[in-house]
Amino acid sequence: MNSAAFASFDFAPLLPAGLPPAVARWTGRVKFDFTGGNNDADALPLEGLVAAVTAVLRREGRSLSTYGLSSGPQGYRPLREFLVAKLKADAGIACTADDILITSGSLQALDLVNATLLARGDTVIIEEDCYQGSINRLTRLGVTPIGIPLDRDGMRIDALAAALGDLKRKGIRPKYIYTIPTVQNPTGTILPVERRQDMLRLSAAHGVPIFEDDCYADLIWSGERPPALHAMSERGGVIHIGSFSKSIAPALRVGYIVAPWDVMSRTLALKTDGGSGALEQMVLAEYCTANFSRHVPMLRRSLRAKLETLMESLKQNFGASVEFDDPKGGIFLWVKLPDGVDTLKLYQAALAAGVAINPGPEWSVNKSRARNRLRLCFASPSHEEINQGVTTLAEVCRHEFGVPA
Amino acid sequence: MNSAAFASFDFAPLLPAGLPPAVARWTGRVKFDFTGGNNDADALPLEGLVAAVTAVLRREGRSLSTYGLSSGPQGYRPLREFLVAKLKADAGIACTADDILITSGSLQALDLVNATLLARGDTVIIEEDCYQGSINRLTRLGVTPIGIPLDRDGMRIDALAAALGDLKRKGIRPKYIYTIPTVQNPTGTILPVERRQDMLRLSAAHGVPIFEDDCYADLIWSGERPPALHAMSERGGVIHIGSFSKSIAPALRVGYIVAPWDVMSRTLALKTDGGSGALEQMVLAEYCTANFSRHVPMLRRSLRAKLETLMESLKQNFGASVEFDDPKGGIFLWVKLPDGVDTLKLYQAALAAGVAINPGPEWSVNKSRARNRLRLCFASPSHEEINQGVTTLAEVCRHEFGVPA
Repeated sequence: MNSAAFASFDFAPLLPAGLPPAVARWTGRVKFDFTGGNNDADALPLEGLVAAVTAVLRREGRSLSTYGLSSGPQGYRPLREFLVAKLKADAGIACTADDILITSGSLQALDLVNATLLARGDTVIIEEDCYQGSINRLTRLGVTPIGIPLDRDGMRIDALAAALGDLKRKGIRPKYIYTIPTVQNPTGTILPVERRQDMLRLSAAHGVPIFEDDCYADLIWSGERPPALHAMSERGGVIHIGSFSKSIAPALRVGYIVAPWDVMSRTLALKTDGGSGALEQMVLAEYCTANFSRHVPMLRRSLRAKLETLMESLKQNFGASVEFDDPKGGIFLWVKLPDGVDTLKLYQAALAAGVAINPGPEWSVNKSRARNRLRLCFASPSHEEINQGVTTLAEVCRHEFGVPA
Repeated sequence: MNSAAFASFDFAPLLPAGLPPAVARWTGRVKFDFTGGNNDADALPLEGLVAAVTAVLRREGRSLSTYGLSSGPQGYRPLREFLVAKLKADAGIACTADDILITSGSLQALDLVNATLLARGDTVIIEEDCYQGSINRLTRLGVTPIGIPLDRDGMRIDALAAALGDLKRKGIRPKYIYTIPTVQNPTGTILPVERRQDMLRLSAAHGVPIFEDDCYADLIWSGERPPALHAMSERGGVIHIGSFSKSIAPALRVGYIVAPWDVMSRTLALKTDGGSGALEQMVLAEYCTANFSRHVPMLRRSLRAKLETLMESLKQNFGASVEFDDPKGGIFLWVKLPDGVDTLKLYQAALAAGVAINPGPEWSVNKSRARNRLRLCFASPSHEEINQGVTTLAEVCRHEFGVPA
């Protein structure tokens, strides 16, 4: 059989309505890639991972012959035990291994929480500028996101209160308040403790749970973070998710959900994947239990250095045309260009020149306000690639929009 | 926060209609477990996997810092290249790495193909006795499965032709013919070449594609198998899926889809998980490229030996009460008990005695006919556990149903 024969059966009449568009064939990575959650390859703890995987396989590798190892459907127990200690030490969360579900990345966590709580026609509250993957999931599910504006301290509580009040008057009870409170994506802000208290009060008053996505929380420059909303909640109305993608490696697909059993028991019924990848859970448990607290500060320093290269390069190449706040941590910078710049168009032109960026409208539910904004991820490219990529981006932007002058 | 506080926020009013029931807390594996696709731990090629993971990480481990490594969204390219060679050699399939999508186990492959083709209210054709996970997925999706009876050569083509004709008269075009033609689950049958040709003719005549699930095909005692339906199709209307769960280890969640681009390009748009676990793909590619063809015959011999222990033990303990056909391969035996035995009740009583079985009605769309049937998986328990478990099962069955006499 050859490709021509492949084409002869017509599948088109069988496809249901509402499928997303077909994707184009992948043609390789672009030269200067400022998109995606890719991490700093030089900061990957490779020797530590090799030692960990060897040790854990030699000790208990034969358990790979059993679905879920000997840990049941919530995931490899030593990894959950590590998370219990880590979440307590870092985020103030008091939970047990029974409150944790290991997932295939925090993307599966998003899918599972959404499947547990959402139905077509529902409404949820999210940050106005928000992770594209979260926005796209809501769109596909037919759920309406109400975007709350952010300032330099994250979600604005006055705007949240107003939105909740407005929905209440309309008889709409949103299913959750989705927030990335600790290194927000894309703004890099951290919600202060007082706002967390206010958010929890509003959540309780309106009976709307909080869906807390803490996947960047390990990457704060100062190493100091407020307690998680989950930790501060006295009523338990917080579902917390996190990931090892940003702290160790994104291609290891391991995330987690911390949730009360009345949610977890429904979520587990929807996780029909035969368990998340066991080897990746095993190597993370083995490596992180011994090394996480030493590895992460090194990674942060490496990321901070790249961020400084990026900010310096933007100032050099764009001058007064570019605005951004120095983010509190993370792997991305949220950048504002002058009003005349349309970053969806800039994206296309830059890609043709070998530079990939995230155009603002894809990372916001306020498409018009985000029109001249873009997100630049800095963890993966080298310092030299950052400089060259930004230089190229500025050239493209000047050619397309006369900016910088 | 303690568990009591967890309970104080009431999530129940937020749950959408139609969720599956809450699961019970996992309480550990039962003593004699004849369920699930667990494999023979002694046959796991542990040293080979350790050597493979060390080699591949040392060589290219830093690519873990990039989503999808450097291989794009269809999965780790060396694993796809291995599959191209394996599928050609074993199943006669001529495809390229671009025709293959690596998935998180063949369960994700099932979900993705279903999401690509099915909508609520659709009809599909499946084998009457069929993998529980496939049946349950259809139920959840609101899709009607039409079950085709099997005989010792797999799906009966006369019954398939009749069902297709009947549906056509009703104006119903089923979305696919789902089949496990090569070591069928649960019957262990292999569809002969002539039936494959007939099935392909019916598929073409009715414009109904074939969804071929070959996840047990590596485990044929004789090592000889008919070409895959995908290989025999001249029109390309076959979607083929497979897995490494049965040939290497189930806790490594790695499966694959072979499909034409007009399907693949829609399926890829639905695979929004950030890629399947990269380390598991890397270790499988590294190990299998060098060792698959040596490992699998050893595994088959080990499984065949356990099957013989199981069949012998059933004859000894159940005598003339038990009927089964010697399966052509695989990890399970489909067993018939006398008409008076209700295996759903037997399941409950056996579980209380520390023996887990798969009751027939859960593995069939013909619940009444399957009432006195059960599936016994033999790969995971030791020979001694097989003997003890079957002895206990016979005692429970005698106590509950007077069988064996």
